Amino acid sequence: MKKQSYAVLGSGAVGGLYGAMLAKSGHDVHFLLRSDFDHVRRFGFRIESRWGDFTLESPNVYSDAAEMPACDVTLVGLKTVQNNLLPSMLRSTMRDGGSALVLQNGLGVEADLSEHFQVNRILGGCCFLCSNKVGPGHIKHIDYGRIVFGPSERLDEPLRLAKQIESEFVAAGIEAQMSEDLILVRWRKLMWNIPFNGLSVALDASTDKMIASDAAVSLIRDIITEVHTAANAVGAKIGEEWIEKTIDHTRTMVPYDSSMRLDYLAGRKMELDAIFRRPIAAAKEAGVAMPKTEMLLQVLSFMDRSSSS
Amino acid sequence: MKKQSYAVLGSGAVGGLYGAMLAKSGHDVHFLLRSDFDHVRRFGFRIESRWGDFTLESPNVYSDAAEMPACDVTLVGLKTVQNNLLPSMLRSTMRDGGSALVLQNGLGVEADLSEHFQVNRILGGCCFLCSNKVGPGHIKHIDYGRIVFGPSERLDEPLRLAKQIESEFVAAGIEAQMSEDLILVRWRKLMWNIPFNGLSVALDASTDKMIASDAAVSLIRDIITEVHTAANAVGAKIGEEWIEKTIDHTRTMVPYDSSMRLDYLAGRKMELDAIFRRPIAAAKEAGVAMPKTEMLLQVLSFMDRSSSS
Repeated sequence: MKKQSYAVLGSGAVGGLYGAMLAKSGHDVHFLLRSDFDHVRRFGFRIESRWGDFTLESPNVYSDAAEMPACDVTLVGLKTVQNNLLPSMLRSTMRDGGSALVLQNGLGVEADLSEHFQVNRILGGCCFLCSNKVGPGHIKHIDYGRIVFGPSERLDEPLRLAKQIESEFVAAGIEAQMSEDLILVRWRKLMWNIPFNGLSVALDASTDKMIASDAAVSLIRDIITEVHTAANAVGAKIGEEWIEKTIDHTRTMVPYDSSMRLDYLAGRKMELDAIFRRPIAAAKEAGVAMPKTEMLLQVLSFMDRSSSS
Repeated sequence: MKKQSYAVLGSGAVGGLYGAMLAKSGHDVHFLLRSDFDHVRRFGFRIESRWGDFTLESPNVYSDAAEMPACDVTLVGLKTVQNNLLPSMLRSTMRDGGSALVLQNGLGVEADLSEHFQVNRILGGCCFLCSNKVGPGHIKHIDYGRIVFGPSERLDEPLRLAKQIESEFVAAGIEAQMSEDLILVRWRKLMWNIPFNGLSVALDASTDKMIASDAAVSLIRDIITEVHTAANAVGAKIGEEWIEKTIDHTRTMVPYDSSMRLDYLAGRKMELDAIFRRPIAAAKEAGVAMPKTEMLLQVLSFMDRSSSS
């Protein structure tokens, strides 16, 4: 089977890493870049990864999605705060019959996109990894790395698409896993993102500092429990053991600054809608209150306002 | 009636202000000081107050409670974090038949003291004022000023004592008001202290900055509502209108750094037991959960730990 071509929208810590791995394994990959465009055009990508370090020289780079070729698969690694731009970008990069794999945090992106595109062309996924962009075109992947993805609805065609992408990712050396239950994958990721992204900003602390404090761990456990209860109420059947497992995984994780903390420290907008407001609204719809999660959103909204004023 | 003598334990923003007002009006007042002892002995107290500025020259000052004379009334203006020292101090300053008026935030102090002293000699009170110690012996009283106090239990003798203190305070120019329902007074104060003391530390913000943010005000309202619900559950019948009134009063208040914020910024221990743990425990006892108040305590406990490590 011919190797699929890939477009990567948002070539940072996530999109840049996976895109470079695919390019290295022989795929035709096209990268959209903003601030790093000039640097990457001249020097390529520099990847430091637990899967092996390498430099990707002379990648196909673009500063405007309108100039990108239509590809078989578009990987979306942009932050959700830019999602208003996504439909027009995808109209450039999705060939007829092509698909999009949205690698964003939070809830609701696939539903938004299905208003613009056929639902059976939209896949979603979550990345369970610690990866930061540490300089222009320079990505440091320090822990984990698994990507789990699947169709936004359980239809035959997107299942086949997802299987093909899975085998290409695996062949490229990426820990990839297809799932038929995307909503479960998304809520599993939220069990980490909501407490650790949020509290890393609210408490001004990296993961290791939080995990070393009994007070912080008790709060983390309370918030994960709220997310777990909400997940099960909306139909994502996640075992209760994942509450402690999520904490334990973070205990053994290398000290890490979450993407939300990096966004906040750099004065960028935080992904409060996708990671907080939509899950809280979905839980409320299902009759579940999330008071501590809601308070974390209130605190972050106050801080967001502060940094933008 | 002969003017009563007063001992003041903790001569800071609260004890220093009221003690100096009493001394100015002719009472025999004895002040316990720690770090400001030398300065106040030489230069006296400098009071800047909305009731009028004045200097109290040559006050009776002590650096050790054991050297203080037995007085009719002992005002306790110490922070609750030092309450382990309180019984031995009071044994020096309370004359036979004398009384103590505990002007501390939070819950449970009167009950603790009644294990050491006759309950009918223990009065409690709350100060509704904005006052800060801005330098050695230099107190700046910038807004409000009312002190409300009463017996810890409704017995005849402490009621008579409270009335006498009330009339002496009023004669000294202090807005003083006796109450027969101390538990209600304490919870009314908690409706301010819990959200504003706590969030001023957690959000690193003075009152005006919080009150200008919709996100912060919505969180403040949620927390005040929890305190109000808890208050009514434990028998402090406070009208619901006090939820909005507490916010509105703060809206028109001069910008203010709460005592807890000043303690935190100076690296001092915060009054988490009296202001948070005991009220949360009392509410739980009465079957009321306070999730956002509890989360605020968890955040403050994390921060407290950080600053001491």
